[in-house]
Amino acid sequence: MRQSKLFTKTRKEAPSDEVAKNAQLLLRAGYIYKNMAGAYTFLPLGLQVIERINTIIREEMDAIGGQEMHMPSLQEPSLWEKTDRWSDENVDVWFKSELAAGGAVGLAWTHEEVITEIMRQYVASYKDLPLFAYQIQTKFRNEIRAKSGIMRTREFWMKDLYSFCATEEQHNDFYEACADAYMKIFNRLGIGEQTYKTFASGGAFTKFSHEFQTLAEAGEDVVYVSKAKGIAVNEEVLEEADLSELGVTKDGLEKCKSIEVGNIFSLGTKFSDALGLTYKDESGTDVPVIMGSYGIGPARAMGTVVDLLADEKGIVWPESIAPYQIHLVGLNLDDAEMRDYVEGLYTSLRNRGVSVLFDDRDLRPGEKFADSDLLGMPYRVVASKKTKESGSFEVVTRATGDTRYLTEEELYADFGATADA
Amino acid sequence: MRQSKLFTKTRKEAPSDEVAKNAQLLLRAGYIYKNMAGAYTFLPLGLQVIERINTIIREEMDAIGGQEMHMPSLQEPSLWEKTDRWSDENVDVWFKSELAAGGAVGLAWTHEEVITEIMRQYVASYKDLPLFAYQIQTKFRNEIRAKSGIMRTREFWMKDLYSFCATEEQHNDFYEACADAYMKIFNRLGIGEQTYKTFASGGAFTKFSHEFQTLAEAGEDVVYVSKAKGIAVNEEVLEEADLSELGVTKDGLEKCKSIEVGNIFSLGTKFSDALGLTYKDESGTDVPVIMGSYGIGPARAMGTVVDLLADEKGIVWPESIAPYQIHLVGLNLDDAEMRDYVEGLYTSLRNRGVSVLFDDRDLRPGEKFADSDLLGMPYRVVASKKTKESGSFEVVTRATGDTRYLTEEELYADFGATADA
Repeated sequence: MRQSKLFTKTRKEAPSDEVAKNAQLLLRAGYIYKNMAGAYTFLPLGLQVIERINTIIREEMDAIGGQEMHMPSLQEPSLWEKTDRWSDENVDVWFKSELAAGGAVGLAWTHEEVITEIMRQYVASYKDLPLFAYQIQTKFRNEIRAKSGIMRTREFWMKDLYSFCATEEQHNDFYEACADAYMKIFNRLGIGEQTYKTFASGGAFTKFSHEFQTLAEAGEDVVYVSKAKGIAVNEEVLEEADLSELGVTKDGLEKCKSIEVGNIFSLGTKFSDALGLTYKDESGTDVPVIMGSYGIGPARAMGTVVDLLADEKGIVWPESIAPYQIHLVGLNLDDAEMRDYVEGLYTSLRNRGVSVLFDDRDLRPGEKFADSDLLGMPYRVVASKKTKESGSFEVVTRATGDTRYLTEEELYADFGATADA
Repeated sequence: MRQSKLFTKTRKEAPSDEVAKNAQLLLRAGYIYKNMAGAYTFLPLGLQVIERINTIIREEMDAIGGQEMHMPSLQEPSLWEKTDRWSDENVDVWFKSELAAGGAVGLAWTHEEVITEIMRQYVASYKDLPLFAYQIQTKFRNEIRAKSGIMRTREFWMKDLYSFCATEEQHNDFYEACADAYMKIFNRLGIGEQTYKTFASGGAFTKFSHEFQTLAEAGEDVVYVSKAKGIAVNEEVLEEADLSELGVTKDGLEKCKSIEVGNIFSLGTKFSDALGLTYKDESGTDVPVIMGSYGIGPARAMGTVVDLLADEKGIVWPESIAPYQIHLVGLNLDDAEMRDYVEGLYTSLRNRGVSVLFDDRDLRPGEKFADSDLLGMPYRVVASKKTKESGSFEVVTRATGDTRYLTEEELYADFGATADA
């Protein structure tokens, strides 16, 4: 992509009403635009990051047997009245409206009721189970205070997976498989090291549910971490649970601020009981289906990556979700010979399938370097009169600042393989 | 994909409240699920079709310079009051709600106001123009009557592109390029032959806007077609415009029912005037930006394909958007040797990157064939004792019923290349 053609531009200052670091940087770099408190536009570069995050999530959900689908936001009351989750007394995040044709509608803030009702059509026998279905879909929540930039918004993408099992054993197997898949996702996003599987209270059906908490100064949550054990517990579990069964003691835990980047939850038969989702077992008896739900917010994950990895100069994307692998910064482009040379390099890189953002703009080197740092592509390749004369290119790794000098052939050899433009 | 693992199932009868052919077939085949009037779930096979349609749309929009982004649904009144499109008197399809924090919000039914406001931040000079931005995003419209299955719903995906130009010439060039891109899209979707660029009234800024109307008995619209000229006009243009400038006469036009599958519209400076989107021309003067909008509904396109191409036995997908290219129907699978043989074929096809739905279920041949016809993959490959003995496979083209017999090697040669599993 030629930067001169990209319609977004960087800006020196973030809007004064944005205090969260993730939103400040993403707004300044032109990844997002704030439409109102709690509702953002994902501009071309920002949407590319989201799409790459979604691809990682899809791959890991598909690998454990997830089938992707897409459910609507619009909801009629009847279904939600069966679980007592329609009334504003019980659920305070509904956006509700009226159908022109008459009757109330709400915007789904989760989809347990919806998918349970759908599965009544497709689940009949134990032979149909287990099954795992997910979507990456827009949720609406009428939060009183939207905050932390793109971390807690009123409209956001959610990957929500729901599991339907015949037996506790099936359920537990999938629950563990999904917990493992979540850690794979956070590892691939570049935040695995700071992310802890965190024990939270489990509700009526299990002792614990689990959150995935990423340690971060900007976090809204507090967790108690055992780095040795690689787990954490939340406040409630710290106060109420018997920590010895987790192999930790209160004194051995470190209090840390954190961001909740995912959660997994055993639902038992709460929804299948309320909505009548049963299967026939081998003896022909109707048995309620055991369910679980498993959530990750792609935009929250994106904000977490920015909060964690950014430095004072700007965003630092891991290769796995960067919009482009290389930021090719062309200098001295007012010289026709130089322009031909850099254009040629851009074309050669693209022909080899390397994913490149090409700064072909008519700006001073200092501005280009500052923009490049702010935008945060993993590698910056500088092509200038100097590199042309020496026959080697300066390649700077954004995360570390490490500088290498590579010939054109070495460049292709190094980056041709990482391509997925 | 193994059909035994797919959680959806076919059903013999469509729900009695669904009269549209597209929805009847898609519901029976398990591509969609009706949650309420005007709101559908896209089940795994249905979502795959939508994704393939979206990929075609993206490729053609990117090819004419479109940059993909994603805007929110939630909208505050202030922006829309500037164009007089907030009040229910002027716009009767708003879903409106209240913020818990106070104040009204609506759900975007289009995005002209939103994107014009965004571009105020990024457009300053004539050098920033032209620019073209689009999204594939969910729209909400509070229709009094949702109808025609997935053709007119209250919640639907829309590809909406907006163009921003400095001059009429830039605008006209892009308008024509987009019209051509739309025809390419409809050709790739398999409905190009029946789809006509249709002259509609243009509003305040141009004589004509254009709809893309696909001739179909199930259509809600009426157009007047000149098959010789390859164009059509709508009722309004028929009555009011001078047809001679289009090179047609009233008598030479054929009245046909049709489905509007796309539209393109010159907006002039209506939105840039109202919202203050200007650029500085070469002399430094502020000039309002010339805009256009260009829409296609992916689910409506999907419904149109079903309506047009389906036969009495079920859906017929073109290769371009079929969820899978081959429906591999295994017979005699209770025989262990046969199962090994068919499983081996499935594995070999997948290893060669062929996109296969494998009917590995324990059902009678007649049921499998009926399901296969209903589901509508482009090619059915039957693997049975008979084909094993003869060393050749029966390959039936769904659209024509043509039957060929191919050896395993011929099968790989034929379908290995069409792969994009």
